[in-house]
Amino acid sequence: MTTSVTALSVPQASASFETTTIERRDLRPNDVRIDIQFAGICHSDIHQVRGEWGGETFPMVPGHEIIGTVAEVGSEVTDHQVGDTVGVGCFVDSCLECAACKDGEEQYCTRGVVQTYNDQGYDGEKTFGGYSQQVVTRDHFVVRIPEGMDLAATTPLLCAGITTYHPLKEHNVGPGSRVGVIGMGGLGHVAVKIAAAMGAEVSVLSRTDAKAEDGKAFGATNYYATDDEKVFDDLAGQFDLLVNTVGSGIPLDSFMGLLDRGGVMANLGAPSDNLEISAFSLLPNRRSISGSMVGGLPETQEMLDFCAEHGITATVEVIGADQVDDYYEKVVSGDVRYRAVIDTSTLG
Amino acid sequence: MTTSVTALSVPQASASFETTTIERRDLRPNDVRIDIQFAGICHSDIHQVRGEWGGETFPMVPGHEIIGTVAEVGSEVTDHQVGDTVGVGCFVDSCLECAACKDGEEQYCTRGVVQTYNDQGYDGEKTFGGYSQQVVTRDHFVVRIPEGMDLAATTPLLCAGITTYHPLKEHNVGPGSRVGVIGMGGLGHVAVKIAAAMGAEVSVLSRTDAKAEDGKAFGATNYYATDDEKVFDDLAGQFDLLVNTVGSGIPLDSFMGLLDRGGVMANLGAPSDNLEISAFSLLPNRRSISGSMVGGLPETQEMLDFCAEHGITATVEVIGADQVDDYYEKVVSGDVRYRAVIDTSTLG
Repeated sequence: MTTSVTALSVPQASASFETTTIERRDLRPNDVRIDIQFAGICHSDIHQVRGEWGGETFPMVPGHEIIGTVAEVGSEVTDHQVGDTVGVGCFVDSCLECAACKDGEEQYCTRGVVQTYNDQGYDGEKTFGGYSQQVVTRDHFVVRIPEGMDLAATTPLLCAGITTYHPLKEHNVGPGSRVGVIGMGGLGHVAVKIAAAMGAEVSVLSRTDAKAEDGKAFGATNYYATDDEKVFDDLAGQFDLLVNTVGSGIPLDSFMGLLDRGGVMANLGAPSDNLEISAFSLLPNRRSISGSMVGGLPETQEMLDFCAEHGITATVEVIGADQVDDYYEKVVSGDVRYRAVIDTSTLG
Repeated sequence: MTTSVTALSVPQASASFETTTIERRDLRPNDVRIDIQFAGICHSDIHQVRGEWGGETFPMVPGHEIIGTVAEVGSEVTDHQVGDTVGVGCFVDSCLECAACKDGEEQYCTRGVVQTYNDQGYDGEKTFGGYSQQVVTRDHFVVRIPEGMDLAATTPLLCAGITTYHPLKEHNVGPGSRVGVIGMGGLGHVAVKIAAAMGAEVSVLSRTDAKAEDGKAFGATNYYATDDEKVFDDLAGQFDLLVNTVGSGIPLDSFMGLLDRGGVMANLGAPSDNLEISAFSLLPNRRSISGSMVGGLPETQEMLDFCAEHGITATVEVIGADQVDDYYEKVVSGDVRYRAVIDTSTLG
C-alpha cells in the first residue's frame, strides 16, 4: 500500500514541470510522514533537471530544502511527534554504521548516502523530493525547526544554510576572522548572514555593485565589485577564508591571491567544468582550496538552532507551483532576491 | 671590496654551464662567509635555468641546497663560529619584522623573501647560488648541521627535506596516519623516509614498479604502480594525506579519489601548466588540495635535528662540476637515484 500525492515532476531532461501524482510508501517503524509546506529551489535542482551532472534519471521531482508538519510517525519514532514543524535536507538515508555516519557526517557514508531525490533508496525505490505535498523519511534525517522562525524563509537553510555553515565552522570562523564571500546569490547571501553572526569581518566579492546595499544589510562590513580588477591588487593577502559560492567562470588564480598565510578557499559550487588553477596560486602563503558537501544531521540541527538564536533566515521570494519554470530561468540569470521557495499548498 | 670566487653559471636561458668568476660581498656585521663543500641539484634549478617560470635573469648561478664550513663571521654574529658546518637553503634574507617572519615563516615575508639565486637582495644586488666556492649570507638564514651526518647526503635536506617535512608536520602526520607519496624522485624519496620516521603508514604511488625495492628500503609499507589503473579503485578513500611531488601530467582527479574524509593533497610541485581538477573531486569527503613553499628557518633547523635523530639523509649521487649539464638531463628523465649533489671542490 502507498499514498498518492501531488508533485511537480519533469518527465525528461530540460522538460517543463508537470503536475503529476507520485506514491509515498507506508510508514516503516522508523519513518516520519511530513505534510510539506515549503520547498526551496536550489541551483543544484536546475543542474539535475537539465541533466548537467550526468547520471540523472527521469521522471524527477526535485527539492531538498523542505519544511512541513509531521502527519504520522512509525511505531519506533521517539524524536518527532504529529504536529511538529520539521525539516528535511539533501539526504534521507545512510547506513548509520560506518565511521562517517558515526561521526555525524552521514553525507560521506561509505555505503553511499541516499539523496532526497534523483537517487535510489536502499530498498531500490527511486527517491522523489520536496516539490510535492508529502514526503516519507527515516526519522534520523528529519530535523526540528526551532519555534518562532518564519517557515518559508527558514526553508533554504536546509541546504544553503548548512552548506555555508559547515565550512565556516570547519575553518574556525569567529571574531577576528576575515571572510570573503564570492557571489551573493542563494548560498552567498546566507553565508554573509551566518559569518557575520559568528563575529567575522565579512566582505562580499560580487561581480557588480548591484547588491551592495543588500550586502551591508545582511551584515557585511565591506562590499567589493570584482569587475574592477584593481580590487585584486588592493586586497591581496587580506583574507583568511574565501567562501566560493559561484558555480563557474571566475578567475580562480586572482581570487587565490586574496588569501593570507594558511588561507583557504572553500569551494561550494559544483560546476560541470573543471576548476583550473596555477600551482603558483597555492604555493605562496601555503594556500589551499577545499570542498565540502552540505553537512551532517547533528550539524544541520546545530545550524538551525544557531540561526534561530541569531534571528537568521534566508531572504526569499515565495512562489506558486505554476511559477517554477519561470523561476528556474531567473535563478540561472541571477535575478532572484535571494532564494525562491515554493508554497506547496499551491500544488493541490 | 669583494671576493672573487669560482662558480658554475649559465649565460642565458637553456645554455650550458660555464665555469666563471662571481663576486661575493665583504661581510656586514650580521653576515657569515661559507666555504661551500656541496650543492644539490633541485628540479627547480632546471626550471629556472631553462626560463620555464618566467622572470628569470641571466647570468644565473643556481643552487639552494648548500652545505659548507664557516670561513668568517661578521662582528655581530653570535650563532655561528669559524669552522662550524652549516647549511643554506632556498632564501638568504627577509624583513624579519612582518607577521610571517615573526612566526618563523620567512618564506612568506610580506616585504618579499630574497631567494638564494635568481633574485635581487634588498641592496639591489643579484643573488647567486650554491654552484660556487663560497657564499655570503645573513646569519639568520644559516642553519647548523648536526654532528655526524654525511654531508653530501644531508645537502638535499636543505630544500627537499624541508619542503616535504613541512606538509607532513602541518597535517599532523604520526602513528596511524596513512600517507601516500606520489612520485619517488628527489622530493619523494625524502618524503617517504621522513613520513616513515614520523610513524606513518607510507605508500609510494609511483608510475611503474621500477623503484619498488628502494621504496620499501626507504621505509614505505606499501608500493603501488599507478600505471595499473585498478589501483585507483582498490585504494579509493584510503589515505589521509597525499604528498604530490610530481611536477605535472598526473590525473589529479583519480588521485583525489584516494583521499578519505578530510583528506588533503599537499601539492609541492611547481609545474608551469595549470592544475585541472573537477569540483566533484573536492566535494565528496570534504577533500582539499594545498600548496606550500619549503619551510621557515626554525622549522628547517627542527627538520635537520629530526633527521639526525632518525638517521635520515637523502640518497645521493655525488658528481663533479663537469657533469652538471648531463645530470640536468638525467633529472628531467627521472634517472637520478635519487638526488645529484655537486662536490664543489671540483670547481677549482
